[in-house]
Amino acid sequence: MRFATIRTDQGDTRAVRVEGETLVDLGLADVGELLARPDRAELAVRAGEPVAGFAGFAPVVPNPGKIVCVGLNYRNHILEMGRELPEYPTLFAKYPEALVGAYDEIQLPPESDKVDWEAELAVVIGARVRRADEAEAEAAIAGFAVLNDVTMRDWQYRSPMWLQGKTWEASTPFGPYLVTPDELEGGVRPSLTLTGWVDGEQVQQADTADLVFDPVDLVRYVSTILTLNPGDVIASGTPGGVGHARKPARYLADGSVLATEITGLGRSEVKAVAEPAAR
Amino acid sequence: MRFATIRTDQGDTRAVRVEGETLVDLGLADVGELLARPDRAELAVRAGEPVAGFAGFAPVVPNPGKIVCVGLNYRNHILEMGRELPEYPTLFAKYPEALVGAYDEIQLPPESDKVDWEAELAVVIGARVRRADEAEAEAAIAGFAVLNDVTMRDWQYRSPMWLQGKTWEASTPFGPYLVTPDELEGGVRPSLTLTGWVDGEQVQQADTADLVFDPVDLVRYVSTILTLNPGDVIASGTPGGVGHARKPARYLADGSVLATEITGLGRSEVKAVAEPAAR
Repeated sequence: MRFATIRTDQGDTRAVRVEGETLVDLGLADVGELLARPDRAELAVRAGEPVAGFAGFAPVVPNPGKIVCVGLNYRNHILEMGRELPEYPTLFAKYPEALVGAYDEIQLPPESDKVDWEAELAVVIGARVRRADEAEAEAAIAGFAVLNDVTMRDWQYRSPMWLQGKTWEASTPFGPYLVTPDELEGGVRPSLTLTGWVDGEQVQQADTADLVFDPVDLVRYVSTILTLNPGDVIASGTPGGVGHARKPARYLADGSVLATEITGLGRSEVKAVAEPAAR
Repeated sequence: MRFATIRTDQGDTRAVRVEGETLVDLGLADVGELLARPDRAELAVRAGEPVAGFAGFAPVVPNPGKIVCVGLNYRNHILEMGRELPEYPTLFAKYPEALVGAYDEIQLPPESDKVDWEAELAVVIGARVRRADEAEAEAAIAGFAVLNDVTMRDWQYRSPMWLQGKTWEASTPFGPYLVTPDELEGGVRPSLTLTGWVDGEQVQQADTADLVFDPVDLVRYVSTILTLNPGDVIASGTPGGVGHARKPARYLADGSVLATEITGLGRSEVKAVAEPAAR
């Protein structure tokens, strides 16, 4: 199954099930609410009317309880950044204020001139788990979505910790769809083609099977540390091809179009728009 | 004024105003709800009955929208860790699952044997701000609280990012009180004595005026990156005296009592309890 959170012309949002061209209204505000409901399995499949007043895609989970990001997780990106294959995942956070819908604009803040792309597979949690074993971790994955972990490289490297380059307001497209593992090649360890484009030029491409730590590994690892809840998101890391590693380096500019696609999960396409200069 | 979130013997929580020995019931679930209400100024001062069925302190804001932590922010701790004074704050995150009340137990997970202390002044946000100027940042500080950023050092240093050592479930006492700046020496740039003890032995002590980036600086800096909302928390960093930097290193053990106090803000005192071995 395939789900989305859509905005309506009434100014609210709705969770929908995507059936071909039809968006079936599930009677809930968003996919996060769907996942959090104890009766989510029945709600997900129930009959409904086509949603009225479609006005665009919101972040597929608009307000996750937590977003855990993984750095250095594609073999080829690790090598590109001049590092060794890691023994443990590198984890950092992003706050929900960073999220935008799959076709929204992203903000280029006047405080940064090194805004870079990181096409990623996002894992969306569908169950409450702590110290999940293999089977529990597999069962806790509600599905997958497209995410681009847009990064302000100048701010990322201002201090030893990357957070301040990773969580700028309205920087991170997430969606359009949440797709359940049964629809995907490889299931909860998907083997899908992840591609990023800037202004129509392909800049990143990898198979999601190239992850050092796969989605099940990540759910197990993160849930060792703390409880994962429905709607939580793990952004699983980006492959090679980021702008900062190019010679010369390349960044997003006012008007740049950043597209991110994963086979089976759909495509996001956002325009980067320069914010007015800060006072 | 002084506020707290308390648990009741009915199994719920309540926001209270602390008046000497009396806890005045504000008719709200917690201090986070109080701060988020547009009419918070009136709600904060309104008359009420003493709360019924006090059963302990919850984290003073039980579920902040975000917790931003600051590393390397006391001059003496920076020198202790062998680093230079920074040009920019070092920011990282903690998820709300880490928080416990000021007199709860903290969990020593079987996966770590290097659980360390970090006594901190927490800044609690009381207004929605983005790119706050000096006056807006001052006005956005609802008050201050005691926090101990308990850290699993082995996990902190497993990867380049500290997050995985910083956000273990039920590790971080927060409270008991939120105290408004007008009650504190130094106001929004408080000059207060921060002290940490382990098993009654003083291990950390500093004046909160020794911060490289003071609370107003931090609100300005973080709000440049993204919107701060009422109830958000900035943990402003720890001074020297952590266990990891001692020779020999020292960590919390099963039964250790960790106390944290800031003059004017009260004291937390938590017992560290070993969790059963993981399966």
